[in-house]
Amino acid sequence: MPAPLRLGLAGLGTVGIGVVKIVQTHAALLAARTGRPIEIVAVSARDRSRNRDADLSGYAWESDPVALARRSDIDVFVEVMGGHDGAAKDATEAALATGKDVVTANKALLAHHGQALALAAEQAGRIIRFEAAVAGGIPAIKALTEGLAGNRMKRVMGVMNGTCNYILTRMESAGLPYETVFEEARQLGYLEADPNLDVGGIDAGHKLSLLAAIAFGTKVSFDAVELEGIGKISIEDIRLAADMGYRIKLLGVAQMTGRGLEQRMTPCLVPADSPLGQLQGGTNMVVLEGDSVGQIVLRGPGAGQGPTASAVMSDVIDLARGSRIPTFGQPAATLAEATPAASATPAAHYLRMTLLDKPGALAKIATVIGEAGISIDRMHQYGHSDAHAPVLIVTHRAAPQDIAHALSRFAATGVLVGEPVALRIEEI
Amino acid sequence: MPAPLRLGLAGLGTVGIGVVKIVQTHAALLAARTGRPIEIVAVSARDRSRNRDADLSGYAWESDPVALARRSDIDVFVEVMGGHDGAAKDATEAALATGKDVVTANKALLAHHGQALALAAEQAGRIIRFEAAVAGGIPAIKALTEGLAGNRMKRVMGVMNGTCNYILTRMESAGLPYETVFEEARQLGYLEADPNLDVGGIDAGHKLSLLAAIAFGTKVSFDAVELEGIGKISIEDIRLAADMGYRIKLLGVAQMTGRGLEQRMTPCLVPADSPLGQLQGGTNMVVLEGDSVGQIVLRGPGAGQGPTASAVMSDVIDLARGSRIPTFGQPAATLAEATPAASATPAAHYLRMTLLDKPGALAKIATVIGEAGISIDRMHQYGHSDAHAPVLIVTHRAAPQDIAHALSRFAATGVLVGEPVALRIEEI
Repeated sequence: MPAPLRLGLAGLGTVGIGVVKIVQTHAALLAARTGRPIEIVAVSARDRSRNRDADLSGYAWESDPVALARRSDIDVFVEVMGGHDGAAKDATEAALATGKDVVTANKALLAHHGQALALAAEQAGRIIRFEAAVAGGIPAIKALTEGLAGNRMKRVMGVMNGTCNYILTRMESAGLPYETVFEEARQLGYLEADPNLDVGGIDAGHKLSLLAAIAFGTKVSFDAVELEGIGKISIEDIRLAADMGYRIKLLGVAQMTGRGLEQRMTPCLVPADSPLGQLQGGTNMVVLEGDSVGQIVLRGPGAGQGPTASAVMSDVIDLARGSRIPTFGQPAATLAEATPAASATPAAHYLRMTLLDKPGALAKIATVIGEAGISIDRMHQYGHSDAHAPVLIVTHRAAPQDIAHALSRFAATGVLVGEPVALRIEEI
Repeated sequence: MPAPLRLGLAGLGTVGIGVVKIVQTHAALLAARTGRPIEIVAVSARDRSRNRDADLSGYAWESDPVALARRSDIDVFVEVMGGHDGAAKDATEAALATGKDVVTANKALLAHHGQALALAAEQAGRIIRFEAAVAGGIPAIKALTEGLAGNRMKRVMGVMNGTCNYILTRMESAGLPYETVFEEARQLGYLEADPNLDVGGIDAGHKLSLLAAIAFGTKVSFDAVELEGIGKISIEDIRLAADMGYRIKLLGVAQMTGRGLEQRMTPCLVPADSPLGQLQGGTNMVVLEGDSVGQIVLRGPGAGQGPTASAVMSDVIDLARGSRIPTFGQPAATLAEATPAASATPAAHYLRMTLLDKPGALAKIATVIGEAGISIDRMHQYGHSDAHAPVLIVTHRAAPQDIAHALSRFAATGVLVGEPVALRIEEI
């Protein structure tokens, strides 16, 4: 039997303990599949005294993850601490500089420093792997980087924040407003310490930026992701969208166009009977579209101890088997600058607004829309008992800047009550 | 730039030409992703004169695929000829014996000779890869062998014959009988020369046996797959199943139990609102269940030039990148004998029958079912205008042998008209 692959594990939270459990319970299975033993040599976490539902007595303890990363008796540094700066970054850099491969679940770290870290890895002859950073247990990074590597990718999409999808589906099923379900999610422990990472779309945006880099051979450019969270989605929008056969999802879309790279993580309408539309609760979905393969849809648990540890271990197993694929699927120095598209691909839009119930109100809005060059597919004025008429418009395909232009001119009509809502209807 | 990876391509049908197109149009992309050029050196097909929608003038021509396999100027033998014996087998053996890796789309070959070929490959220090053999463009083999390799797999399932799924969904949507839709499919060119490969479940059974070998670390045992085709599924069954919230699919299921390995490819009922239930037309789906990850669902095109060539190329790219994973995910000599389970896991069953409309008929049937130890979940006698009453029964979970026993005793009741239909309701 060849020499074992020796792991240094930084982070003993839910995911770290999941990794420990797999290594301990599946030692024979892992050795059979990789041809060599996989061993944890040393671990690191903030608080040594915490009770952790796993026997760690066989592992050396390092209080400093950088010291763990530098140990000469490990081959792979497994980083499941989190955080896009500070210890996680320092330790990852130390691991690469001292000749270790890195397996990380840290989407924020790679979204912010992916290019620099990938370059550092290649200069050191090492690689960074990050299956667990995107879509939990779904082998999405592998499917894209390896399984579809014969394709020029056209578009990648994903519902990749389980908490947002839980909130949106729970609002629909229970008929509850956003604030109530947000509070439920908080009490269930579904939200990050900074909830805006979830509901602001930042966490999912991190993931999208990593998928886009691989798909299009471009440097990670998280800063160019158009981000919009779910905080403004009302139960009324969810109901009206459902009436028309749609569901609202926090959907990430990255596509390469003649105008540059589009990346957005925004609430969108998708057909209710599509795989994306039918995704319930915390489950994630990644959609990969290539020129030869067409559309591949991957669905599975987006978080949790078992699924995330499964993804971490798939990277560890690949390393044990000798896989040496560059971090983003090709050498970091060959990744192109991603020129952000100045404008997004046109799409149908959902527009909801409340109008004063007086003659000519609807005509004024329709005129503004027409003057913006937007044609209307469907328009519906709902019954109402007061002086405010709820109006719903579905446009034909229109440029987002035309939609924005029309919205900016609504106020001047003097017939609008409150703010209008505009949501993209993604074609899938 | 390192030396090119040189391919010998045997088979210039739809898939082979798809491979040629990707290699020719994506040369730069492939080199960027693998770090080396990928080149076709020589090709082989039965008829050289046929017009083939691709420029083959740069490739050497071999009329004999075995001669192609033996050429000293190729590194990888790509077999997309088909057939489980004869030339495909001879050429694959010749390729391995002369030191080439093999990429094949040939499920029949591997289902029948997978263990022997995997052993031959390992003795020669070579590997066989077969992503294109299972579920077309879906990277299912990779997801299972690599992406979920940290899991003890519990169950794998799949709808993996697009023609059968086309027939079943078309029967439902158009309200047409099996024979009519079968004839449509034949005229559309959806059926193999021997249609029983499709509608008899053999092709899908081949694929299931390959997934099972990887999932459970057992030798391929296609002969142990319980096979039943879709020829007996009536439009009436499709309608009645839909009434109760189910759809009928030709579903493959492999699971390891305390009683041995279960493998079956049979028509089953699945919930209409599940991902499997919602699968329409020729699209394939593979469901992978592991102890850590839970359930992963993969969906995509199961056939066609682009998708199948995409899968072939993912194997070629892996080889170009230096991947050396054994054929079935671990060395062939370490694969266990698969002991077939003597009996299948209990499941709810759908039973449809026609009874003589006379007093006590239903009671007699219910008595037989009760005496077989089966409890009834729902029973429905449909309205009828003649002397024959259609009856539908959904049982609680029951052992298949108990169901078979009850069916065998129905005739003796003297109240049955024709043959009863019994279908498993798979829990998903």
